[in-house]
This record gives sequence, C-alpha cells and structure tokens, in this order.
Amino acid sequence: MLKIAALEKLIHELNRLPGIGPKTAQRFAYYILKSPANYTQDLVQALAEVKAKVHECKECFNYTDKEVCYYCEDPYRSNEVLCVVEEPSDIDRIESSGAYRGRYHVLHGSLSPLDGVGPKDLKIEELLARIHSPEKGTIREVILALDADLEGDTTVLYIAKHLQGAGVKVSRIAHGIPIGSNIDFIDDRTMSKALENRVDL
Amino acid sequence: MLKIAALEKLIHELNRLPGIGPKTAQRFAYYILKSPANYTQDLVQALAEVKAKVHECKECFNYTDKEVCYYCEDPYRSNEVLCVVEEPSDIDRIESSGAYRGRYHVLHGSLSPLDGVGPKDLKIEELLARIHSPEKGTIREVILALDADLEGDTTVLYIAKHLQGAGVKVSRIAHGIPIGSNIDFIDDRTMSKALENRVDL
Repeated sequence: MLKIAALEKLIHELNRLPGIGPKTAQRFAYYILKSPANYTQDLVQALAEVKAKVHECKECFNYTDKEVCYYCEDPYRSNEVLCVVEEPSDIDRIESSGAYRGRYHVLHGSLSPLDGVGPKDLKIEELLARIHSPEKGTIREVILALDADLEGDTTVLYIAKHLQGAGVKVSRIAHGIPIGSNIDFIDDRTMSKALENRVDL
Repeated sequence: MLKIAALEKLIHELNRLPGIGPKTAQRFAYYILKSPANYTQDLVQALAEVKAKVHECKECFNYTDKEVCYYCEDPYRSNEVLCVVEEPSDIDRIESSGAYRGRYHVLHGSLSPLDGVGPKDLKIEELLARIHSPEKGTIREVILALDADLEGDTTVLYIAKHLQGAGVKVSRIAHGIPIGSNIDFIDDRTMSKALENRVDL
C-alpha cells in the first residue's frame, strides 16, 4: 500500500492536520479510497469554497463570508462592551454560554516572545484604534477573554498597559474552580487564584 | 463562526471521516482557514490525485496505481501461499512483521448477514477462481488472516467450506496471548483459545 506515491502524498497532507498522527492520517486515506467518488468531490469543493469565501471581518477580524461578521452586523448587540479573544473559535465558546451580548475583537493569537510573536503579528493595533476612535459609539468596557496561560497573561498585561488612561474599564474573565468540579482535584495555582479572587456574599 | 455556510459545509464533510466528531471537524476547519492557501491546494490536489490514480489491483484487489500491485508484481515472492485479508491496510500490518513472503488477496470486507454483506459483496468468488485456476502456478496453502470477530469467523467458515476438496491447505492465523502481555489482563475467550491451541514443545 505505502508503495503508492499518490497515497503517500495524501497521508502526508492529512498528517499535517492538528492532532493527527501518521496512523490516523493513513486511516483517513483508506477511508477516502473506499468511499464513493462524490464524497471526495464534496470534500474538495468544501475545502476550495472555504478558502475562497471565508475571510476576516474588517471590524473585528472574526471569520465571515460577508464584509462584516454576524456579530458585528447584529443591531441588537451592545456597542459599549468589547470582548477580546485569541481565536475565532473562542467566540463560539462565549456565545454558547449565552452570557454576553456585546461586540468581539479577535487577536488571532497571543503574545509569545519565545516563538517570535510580537504585538505587530496580532490585531492589537487594530484593537487600540477601535477603542480610541470607535465608529459605533463609545466603548465603556473591554473584557479580555484570553487563555489562562503564560502567553495569555503576557497579552493581558500588554493590552492593559496600552489602555491606561484611555478612559475604558479593562477586565479579564475570572479564574477559579470550574462549576461542577470537586475541590480535591483542583491544582494549586487555580486554588490560589480562587481564594485571591473570592467574591463577597 | 458557525453562521457561515461554507464553513458549516466543510465541517460537515470533515465530520464524516472515521472517528472524527463535530468538535474535531471544527478544529480541522479552523486550522485550514488559518493555514496558508498552498496547504489547502496541496490537500485538494492530493485528494483528487488519490481518487484518480489509485484503484484495485486486478489480481489481488489491493490498492495500486499500476495494473497489478507491488506485491503481485514482485518476482521474489512465493506463488504457492496466498494470504487472505479483509482490507488493504491489513497487508501493511502483515508486511511489517516480516514473517510472510507469499501473495495476498483482499476481500474488501467480511461477511456480515446482519448488515446485508453477503459473499457477492466481497471478492470471494475471485478468490475461489484464483485458487481453482491459478495463473501463476499451483497455490498450496491459503492463510486466512481475518479479524478475530464474529464477521471474521463467519467469513473463515464460508471460505473453508468452499475450499473443501480443492486440494489446498487452508489455515487461519493463530489466536492467543499477545507477545509482551501480562496473563492477568487476558480476557476469557482469548485465554481459552490460547489453551486450546497450545503448542507442543
């Protein structure tokens, strides 16, 4: 089997998908070989279409197939709150909680000096521009919904520093014990954050 | 994000890959969106090429991009032994053991009356024809390397019955304790097979 150049090439390409090792890539390739021709046609068409039609929203840099994205377009969302996320997929996570009805801004990554990712590689300048000269009315609060890791922390510090004196409230989503979890299994850093940020009753 | 038709379609198509749920399909789709355009081009080309170039070997029904496959073509393999497998991927498994140097025959599945898979849906007639009127010299032994499940057992019984009196030795690969495993963790059926098929020392 693995003596076939076309098959080896497909396995190589599938192997590049996130979290897919050579074994799974091989399984996909065999599945594709076994499936009727129209599955491959549909997949090829869907791949080409996504790359052709989907691009970044000109306001918030979320993905969209229109000029501005679904959330920027929605007239019923508040223009006063802006939620900053690392990736477009983070928006889905926040939306499905149903707890947020403001606008978004997608950075497309987080600051990581070790990997050579600086402020210019992210949509940070665009974020500051949006806050300093908003097109849709004053932004009162910026909620930073970034990952709870070193890169997220660095990015939070950088943005907070650049928003000092801009007259907007800057907040970060809370760190603490996840709902439904057992205190026995919580790690030390989460527990110390949960104690530090305890809420008055 | 999930309000974009082209993206939803791609997620739907990726979701059909074996073992891939909607969450992973979504991760792939985001990865494809984020990756440079040439990755998608390479992937699309590899998919199209595999479907266009790779087909079943006319002798053994393994996949190949030539008329006959790598193993049928090899002049140094024995024509006297034929190993019957369910899927082309099983050949890789057998080859990597290095313990077999004969020819192969791929059934492309196993008998499963409950799923409506009968002998005519597999390459069983072709197998019997190969054994009864071999083109490359007499076949002396047929090794059935089928899965150790109900469908594999059914297929073994069916083929063995149809080869009675054909003058070939029919064998099945051994079931027993896997090498390197601890007897404590072996299930009852494997253990009873291992006892039943014990080897004289």
